[in-house]
Amino acid sequence: MVERLVVIGGDAAGASAASQARQRRGPDDLEIVVLERGRHTSYSACGVPYWVGGLVSGADALVARAPEAHRERGLDVRLGSEAEGIDLDKREVAVRDVHTGAADRIGFDQLVIATGATPVRPPVPGIDAPGVYGVQTLDDGQALIDALDPAYTHAVVIGGGYIGIEMAEAMKLRGLDVTVLDRGAQPMSTLDPDMGVLVHEQMEEMGINVVTHADVRAVETGPDGRVRAVATAERSYPADLVVLGTGVRPATGLARDAGLPLGDSGGIRTDLRMRVWGGDPRHEGVWAAGDCVEVLDLVSGRFRHIPLGTHANKQGRVAGMNIGGDYGTFPGVVGTAVSKVCELEIARTGLRESDADAAGFSYVTAVIESTGRAGYYPGAQRMTVKMIAERVSGRLLGVQIVGRDGAAKRIDVAAVALTARMTVEDVTALDLGYAPPFSPVWDPILVAARKAAQRLAQS
Amino acid sequence: MVERLVVIGGDAAGASAASQARQRRGPDDLEIVVLERGRHTSYSACGVPYWVGGLVSGADALVARAPEAHRERGLDVRLGSEAEGIDLDKREVAVRDVHTGAADRIGFDQLVIATGATPVRPPVPGIDAPGVYGVQTLDDGQALIDALDPAYTHAVVIGGGYIGIEMAEAMKLRGLDVTVLDRGAQPMSTLDPDMGVLVHEQMEEMGINVVTHADVRAVETGPDGRVRAVATAERSYPADLVVLGTGVRPATGLARDAGLPLGDSGGIRTDLRMRVWGGDPRHEGVWAAGDCVEVLDLVSGRFRHIPLGTHANKQGRVAGMNIGGDYGTFPGVVGTAVSKVCELEIARTGLRESDADAAGFSYVTAVIESTGRAGYYPGAQRMTVKMIAERVSGRLLGVQIVGRDGAAKRIDVAAVALTARMTVEDVTALDLGYAPPFSPVWDPILVAARKAAQRLAQS
Repeated sequence: MVERLVVIGGDAAGASAASQARQRRGPDDLEIVVLERGRHTSYSACGVPYWVGGLVSGADALVARAPEAHRERGLDVRLGSEAEGIDLDKREVAVRDVHTGAADRIGFDQLVIATGATPVRPPVPGIDAPGVYGVQTLDDGQALIDALDPAYTHAVVIGGGYIGIEMAEAMKLRGLDVTVLDRGAQPMSTLDPDMGVLVHEQMEEMGINVVTHADVRAVETGPDGRVRAVATAERSYPADLVVLGTGVRPATGLARDAGLPLGDSGGIRTDLRMRVWGGDPRHEGVWAAGDCVEVLDLVSGRFRHIPLGTHANKQGRVAGMNIGGDYGTFPGVVGTAVSKVCELEIARTGLRESDADAAGFSYVTAVIESTGRAGYYPGAQRMTVKMIAERVSGRLLGVQIVGRDGAAKRIDVAAVALTARMTVEDVTALDLGYAPPFSPVWDPILVAARKAAQRLAQS
Repeated sequence: MVERLVVIGGDAAGASAASQARQRRGPDDLEIVVLERGRHTSYSACGVPYWVGGLVSGADALVARAPEAHRERGLDVRLGSEAEGIDLDKREVAVRDVHTGAADRIGFDQLVIATGATPVRPPVPGIDAPGVYGVQTLDDGQALIDALDPAYTHAVVIGGGYIGIEMAEAMKLRGLDVTVLDRGAQPMSTLDPDMGVLVHEQMEEMGINVVTHADVRAVETGPDGRVRAVATAERSYPADLVVLGTGVRPATGLARDAGLPLGDSGGIRTDLRMRVWGGDPRHEGVWAAGDCVEVLDLVSGRFRHIPLGTHANKQGRVAGMNIGGDYGTFPGVVGTAVSKVCELEIARTGLRESDADAAGFSYVTAVIESTGRAGYYPGAQRMTVKMIAERVSGRLLGVQIVGRDGAAKRIDVAAVALTARMTVEDVTALDLGYAPPFSPVWDPILVAARKAAQRLAQS
């Protein structure tokens, strides 16, 4: 008998799950229906800032696999199909055509929930006015690009996290004066403030205005109803365009309504194979992946919501492998993230000081400055590395990097070391690649580990 | 009573050991004498090709710490002092002044042997003729730079290993036609031939002539006694300059003559703390570090000779920490090396197929192509990654990378994974940094791991 897999959501996680299942089970064995409410599949939302900034030619470039390509591989991709409910007893999904409004129900044997995340809009007056743009989807990006007008001079970005700073770069590339409003003590709150301040200073040097402790009270509109400024508690910032970089929350309405378990972080809780958690027999054959799930933080042992395309792809693949009859797991994350604003590279993995405090760790910190190449090699530029290590055990807990020219991807060394639960002493001995164009003889990560080890000895 | 530490060799390993010991023990507790037969201390021999190529302004830039700076830190640095013998019974080193020829003996309580490595000169006629240059020391580099003559048109580099290809780039930057003669099937024999061929092809595309299976028979000289060509078994290659990139062997004459233990690789064998190996009480207080020692390969479990500045620095530091009363170890290496020729980056870590065969592993291999950035991001360029994994266990055994734009340092992820004895399945789940300017959503290392995991499943 042919089983039917229904996948809700055709972006990174959903499409990966569907593809991996199809690679392992043919159409005679498994029918695969992908419900996507939008017009696109398998696209890089992370690429939107670069498209808006003009570095990427068009939306097509961001589409890894278009609906037609999925169909050629035997997936029944239904665009404009919005799932409205999951009935675990009848094993059906209620579907509505977003264009015609027509309702339908589709039965499933296996179900993948890949509903993604929903942008958070600050609840202030004017936030929905024309001229305010999110940048979560290709349609968002297109709307912003269509709106760009040579007469515009000021852009305000609300939120100084990674989307915010990437959009600040994009607006700057478009020739606009850019102001970033962040409510925290420093932008990039995924870093400790002593590292975030480096980002702040260097963004200012690049000519991007960064306002911290910004309490956004309203988006002000002109007589035409369009945005003209953003008001904080202190003052008003002129704005021809407003971009929202205020983060997302997991889109779990369907799952919650169906009685599926959500974790403390608000995301759907799954097991290692991406099966929805819990012993309820009605959960059999129900999987979830991508920005709608929570992930295990391997360093703190806590569950977190970390919406990132790379996790979504991995989780989707794992779900699809298991649905396809193979065995695969997504063991968790260590919290790695890299980003850039113009030439400045920013990276972090593991715990910040506040995370380590919350988890109950006692720790030491070390901050060092080094360069990405041998100091004498042309183009060598400074980077700052902060390392956090547990007292007594010496276990590596987290690393943050701010710098240029090869700074960001150095975080990967720390990510692997965290996964392997190495001590900073272990890290000092790592056999990392050395040649003058690529590293000083002591790689910055090793220098930081040496200093952390010293701090441990003194602690 | 004041102890005396004598260090033979004032470059990376020796100077690091001396500095670290001094940081921990003051002059009233430990007298430190550094014997250096040359004129420099603590310099980057790895930087010589970039200096010769004109990318680095002068020799001074390559000196991390000059003799005077060491002296200011309380080290008795004696230049032009060549150690000629070690008497373990009398605990004395015989020293000769290389300028005056005057002989002396100096007693020690602790001894660090950091005698480095000696270039291998192919035993062919003419190899010592004027116009043939090694590039191991600053003096070598200066001699080559002094010899550069605008009238020269042809350079021949003997040896296509990392020094050879770096010198090929340097000669090309100096405007010369360059031919690299390598005796192997492909240049860069530290890679498997199927990866070496990529280096070969791309060097040719860059306009560097690469001759493989080159059996060098003679350096031919003109009537003036200077080089004019290099002859292989097949033909003769015109040469105004010949550069030797033919590798080095550990300089262990002193150690061997003193009866200290050498390993199978020819290097001095030490324990984890860099003490010279063995139970002989006369070996008490005798340490060794740098290019003269052998290192434990953590992947194969065998001892190897791997002369690299980064190991020398680490080993010297560990010896100095222990002499200084702290505890430190150098646990071994995984065989990481990175290099570049013009824009092409080359990296390897762990075992090649031949190493895995020799160690007795049964394994699978996977080769993939990917890019260093998201495919749509400006400047994305292709890289090839080869991964080797043990059958049954799935343990990662080695990785090789050839590519551009961020290819080389990606090897560090594999180096840490090897150190942690991860499986390729473990590697597929690594939380590596992702953002479009820095990586595709699946980092090339992850793509290779996925393919290797697939191969394992099929094996």
